Amino acid sequence: MRNTQIRLAQRPVGAPDQSTFTVAHSDLRELAEGEVLLAVRWLSLDPYMRGRLSTAKSYAAPVEIGEVMVGSTVAQVLQSRYDGLSEGDWVLSYSGWQTYAIEQGRQVRRIDPDHAPVTTALGVLGMPGMTAYWGLLEIGRPQPGETVVVAAATGPVGSAVGQIARIKGARAVGIAGGPEKCRVLTEEFGFDVAIDHRAPDFAEQLKAATPDGIDVDFENVGGQVFSAVERRLNVGARVALCGLVANYNDTAPPPGPDRLPAFLSKVLTRSILVQGFIVDTVKVAKQTDFLTEMPQWIAEGRLRYREDVVEGLDNAPAAFAGLLRGDYTGKLLIKVS
Amino acid sequence: MRNTQIRLAQRPVGAPDQSTFTVAHSDLRELAEGEVLLAVRWLSLDPYMRGRLSTAKSYAAPVEIGEVMVGSTVAQVLQSRYDGLSEGDWVLSYSGWQTYAIEQGRQVRRIDPDHAPVTTALGVLGMPGMTAYWGLLEIGRPQPGETVVVAAATGPVGSAVGQIARIKGARAVGIAGGPEKCRVLTEEFGFDVAIDHRAPDFAEQLKAATPDGIDVDFENVGGQVFSAVERRLNVGARVALCGLVANYNDTAPPPGPDRLPAFLSKVLTRSILVQGFIVDTVKVAKQTDFLTEMPQWIAEGRLRYREDVVEGLDNAPAAFAGLLRGDYTGKLLIKVS
Repeated sequence: MRNTQIRLAQRPVGAPDQSTFTVAHSDLRELAEGEVLLAVRWLSLDPYMRGRLSTAKSYAAPVEIGEVMVGSTVAQVLQSRYDGLSEGDWVLSYSGWQTYAIEQGRQVRRIDPDHAPVTTALGVLGMPGMTAYWGLLEIGRPQPGETVVVAAATGPVGSAVGQIARIKGARAVGIAGGPEKCRVLTEEFGFDVAIDHRAPDFAEQLKAATPDGIDVDFENVGGQVFSAVERRLNVGARVALCGLVANYNDTAPPPGPDRLPAFLSKVLTRSILVQGFIVDTVKVAKQTDFLTEMPQWIAEGRLRYREDVVEGLDNAPAAFAGLLRGDYTGKLLIKVS
Repeated sequence: MRNTQIRLAQRPVGAPDQSTFTVAHSDLRELAEGEVLLAVRWLSLDPYMRGRLSTAKSYAAPVEIGEVMVGSTVAQVLQSRYDGLSEGDWVLSYSGWQTYAIEQGRQVRRIDPDHAPVTTALGVLGMPGMTAYWGLLEIGRPQPGETVVVAAATGPVGSAVGQIARIKGARAVGIAGGPEKCRVLTEEFGFDVAIDHRAPDFAEQLKAATPDGIDVDFENVGGQVFSAVERRLNVGARVALCGLVANYNDTAPPPGPDRLPAFLSKVLTRSILVQGFIVDTVKVAKQTDFLTEMPQWIAEGRLRYREDVVEGLDNAPAAFAGLLRGDYTGKLLIKVS
């Protein structure tokens, strides 16, 4: 059986493009004891993958040149030499950008397609949902009546952040690019206010939308959006620093003035918390009620999600570049087969 | 009875100097019921006072023009119309830069001169000691074998930070200005390593002194010292942001490049915590064993402190300017009378 893989061809300088990746075909080997052969059905594309293309010191090792790109996947078992899984089973795996994968059976997690749509394991009930839940509740700790701001707010993390903030009694202010995304924020996801960061008077709109300042910033974006947000941070504010997609393609520090001293002064004088984090599924499982609360909120209609589907693994590189540009509204999924 | 006060004359642009303050004399009024008349014996000068000269948004209100400068003081009761205090009692008060003060009796705290030298209420057993204890243990949370870095390390906060870090089994790396302060760090305060931030190869020395990187940065200084420290922060590091004395006199942001995006990227990719804080005595009393542990460590000789005494209230403005320049090695105290 022939496998198709998308591998890292070279480390991008700036935005990744088609030259960043290469397509390779190879024959699949026989299964060893304990292994399963998976047909990848869905591949999740997420902003964190930009970090795996870089050798900068990080919480995770980079993808090496020539290696298959990493990524979370929902797959079906085609053959099994592992007792716990049978042909046809649906699993969550970390098989990356390929059509088939051989995995250790104990390293994949069976998912029940009758419990929820299988793609939710890559979104609201998977890593993005955990990121929102854990980052907001453990770091942001919104209190009733407080103001929570999140950018990239229609995305799988941001949309959950805003909705969970409201469930906890806080005001949710969402930032997104363009009027259509802003409409989605208030009409589909129930944010109190949506602000278009492309508007020329964005900073003034943000000020008007946060008359009592900002208590929690769930930071996905950085750049000019964060500059406007941090000016509104209250004494005691919490910044859950989850992503900086505006900076991921930067090749050099921007010109001055140097804003770092003023930022640190603000963190000091306003007793602000800034916590960079990645979601750790073990930590989430131990410390939170993620696995009971999130499905319940979905069932009650209080937590909605939205998916953007791109057909075909070959389109993953272009879709990934578009993800970093903000081309998508919901959770970006590649329908692999 | 004539009181002498040092009042704020004008807000300084850059470093405060003699024109920042003015000396005023006034007659003291009669005591009302519940009040005490205090003779100020000791005035504590601390870097946070630079913040009170500025109207920038902060956790505390600025001193107004014409008002007496604020500050913690150790005083003796001259007259009392408050049941809990008698003539001759020693108290901790927040009477500021003046020779006498009338205070509500319930707003001062009696101190026992037989328990410890009265000046320790302004230093190792007072606000600076609480700042060190609470910031290090609640935010920094050093684990045995970890590396803790603190600058302005001979000062009342820094010296306690390093010694408490060692008591908790961590390595203490102290940064100070000049060979004499560095000698004090290792010989008097028992730091594992002392580094002179004025040395031309400071960054290389810091690297050599932290072969396993930095797990906890108790940040008092900012500026170029912090730039070298933040390059060594490990994944999961904690920055207890207590002061930025290098920036306090800044009048404009420094020239570029803008280091803020790269700093935030590091906080994100290394899952770093940055927490600005001020010590809150209520919080300390509730959450920590400060009041039992610190005196015990002092009695055991595991926690030492050092005081620099300047005679005469008139010398407070010059001493304060010197404090911001780093002229003093230990806790700076004005002997008022």
